[in-house]
Amino acid sequence: MNIYWSDTAKRLEPYVPGEQPQDRKYIKLNTNENPYQPSPKVLEAIKNAAGEGLRLYPDPDCNVLKETIAQYYGLEKDQVFVGNGSDEILAFAFLTFFNPGSAILFPDVTYSFYPVYCGLYGIDYKTVPLDESFSIPVESFFQGNGGIVIANPNAPTGKYMDIESIRKILEHNSKSVVIIDEAYIDFGGESSIKLIKEYPNLLVIQTLSKSRSLAGLRVGFAAGNRGLIEGLNRVKNSFNSYTLDRLAIVGAIEAIKDEAYFRETRKKVIRTRERVSAGLADMGFDVVDSMANFIFISHPRVYAYDIFQKLKKQGILVRYFNKPRIDNFLRVTIGTDREMDTFLEVVKNIVSR
Amino acid sequence: MNIYWSDTAKRLEPYVPGEQPQDRKYIKLNTNENPYQPSPKVLEAIKNAAGEGLRLYPDPDCNVLKETIAQYYGLEKDQVFVGNGSDEILAFAFLTFFNPGSAILFPDVTYSFYPVYCGLYGIDYKTVPLDESFSIPVESFFQGNGGIVIANPNAPTGKYMDIESIRKILEHNSKSVVIIDEAYIDFGGESSIKLIKEYPNLLVIQTLSKSRSLAGLRVGFAAGNRGLIEGLNRVKNSFNSYTLDRLAIVGAIEAIKDEAYFRETRKKVIRTRERVSAGLADMGFDVVDSMANFIFISHPRVYAYDIFQKLKKQGILVRYFNKPRIDNFLRVTIGTDREMDTFLEVVKNIVSR
Repeated sequence: MNIYWSDTAKRLEPYVPGEQPQDRKYIKLNTNENPYQPSPKVLEAIKNAAGEGLRLYPDPDCNVLKETIAQYYGLEKDQVFVGNGSDEILAFAFLTFFNPGSAILFPDVTYSFYPVYCGLYGIDYKTVPLDESFSIPVESFFQGNGGIVIANPNAPTGKYMDIESIRKILEHNSKSVVIIDEAYIDFGGESSIKLIKEYPNLLVIQTLSKSRSLAGLRVGFAAGNRGLIEGLNRVKNSFNSYTLDRLAIVGAIEAIKDEAYFRETRKKVIRTRERVSAGLADMGFDVVDSMANFIFISHPRVYAYDIFQKLKKQGILVRYFNKPRIDNFLRVTIGTDREMDTFLEVVKNIVSR
Repeated sequence: MNIYWSDTAKRLEPYVPGEQPQDRKYIKLNTNENPYQPSPKVLEAIKNAAGEGLRLYPDPDCNVLKETIAQYYGLEKDQVFVGNGSDEILAFAFLTFFNPGSAILFPDVTYSFYPVYCGLYGIDYKTVPLDESFSIPVESFFQGNGGIVIANPNAPTGKYMDIESIRKILEHNSKSVVIIDEAYIDFGGESSIKLIKEYPNLLVIQTLSKSRSLAGLRVGFAAGNRGLIEGLNRVKNSFNSYTLDRLAIVGAIEAIKDEAYFRETRKKVIRTRERVSAGLADMGFDVVDSMANFIFISHPRVYAYDIFQKLKKQGILVRYFNKPRIDNFLRVTIGTDREMDTFLEVVKNIVSR
């Protein structure tokens, strides 16, 4: 605490991201990165842009990138917003659509950045308990609220909610903005972007960090009704005119365009996820049904935290959350087949001892 | 206006950046970009980083970049903060150090983003009038306030304030944070970073956009007392864990390291600025003394807006601000010698008709 901090700075409880260890080489299954490299076309485009042009500001509106995303999803350019990762877009969205004094709703078990944004802006929130199987109880969102945020698939569970359930939530909340955070949607789920035309209160947020293998480039986007997108632009343009650098813009454009590469790597991740899930179930693990690029697992006999520590000692990083309801679970990112074979072997030794 | 916008989104008046025209090729003297390309070492580092590693998140703390900047200025790593351009750092700083209800002070003629940040967070402000020659009257900052922001050199005037004046302001305001926005300091001024050890209330913000020719890469930094930097980190980590992508980080590191290139291009800009200022004075222009990479000029007979429009028609973009006190001035970025020769020729024709 420092005498110069504002009241906001004093009350904050910042988000803590997963480790990015610098000390040794790990099999890194802790921050949901894609095990496959970005499309070669992305890398080529970035190399070509690393020239004289970097002395000039980027296009503050990122028009070409927005057009590319709009075309991909059958939208208009002014239905698309882009930002420095989906985290930045969520940060803008909380400020654009939610008011202090009108509590927003999100599940009790979900992305732990949501309450942090609330703290940053002084927005009240109320959590909605997931059921025993970590499913989202749709009816719990049929109560008064100042906004709704749902990660789909949910994190850190990986559990997917079908489009019809989302439609119900949208219909019961026509006066609030409903944010669907689709960071992991590409790994088997169906995007709610198709509902935008019907629901002016729907904002869908996605990222290129996971399914496009670009966590290191920091690009996310949002899709929604023109009015919502205009609101996001107003807030962004009151914060930082140029949130995406020139390299991120050209890289993102190529990533969206290279559909073949996207499909191929996505398929590999899904196939590995299914194989690993089956392998873990065979060892007695409780494996939550996942539509993401990670799985959420628990063992009936060995404590999650013990498994976490033993894995780390043997050079494998996974994510452990010391939080109510999920403190006996591990979130394991899907790596390459080879990485996951090592993981399965090591974890088998840990739980069979 | 949209029914889904928050009270914040409704009250905003966003910042409008200078044009980034896509329609035709201009001599672009409107957004204070450096006319020289970034250091070849920067471009090389970016190309090398455009590989498999982009699938992984960047270091959220940007440790190597912070160490590089700290070493350059004789600071410790925890006295340095980095962000997505100095605009983002200013946005974080306003939220970290200023409170609604306690008006902050800044000059009436200055960077027009400051009142926008105030609007974003509901922070009150009071402007301090510059004197007739656009100098900052030091004593006007010896009044009660919730914080102070001074651009040095000031924008859009280019006028520089000496370190002793800043020292006086710091001493009279030991209970407020004083932000010195040094976006243009490298073009002849002396940085206040040397005062950090003496004043725990001083935050200095710089950018790599101007003097390091990297407007397209989006990197800025702040230097200050550990407590101030910790506050900034708390806010940033409640907003977006990874504000700098991997390419921006490696590029920025090389830009800081390549001192020879930095000195060479800076010298060229300063030399051109002095030559152009003299040429314009010969044509009867009133040229404000500039220590920046732009000049602020006014002509006794021809209206600034007319000159602006005629220049644009002839393919030269400069910046015109339709604002009290400065609506008969133009801000002209210093380009290459060749660009400025063309500018001088065209402007001579305009004012001598």
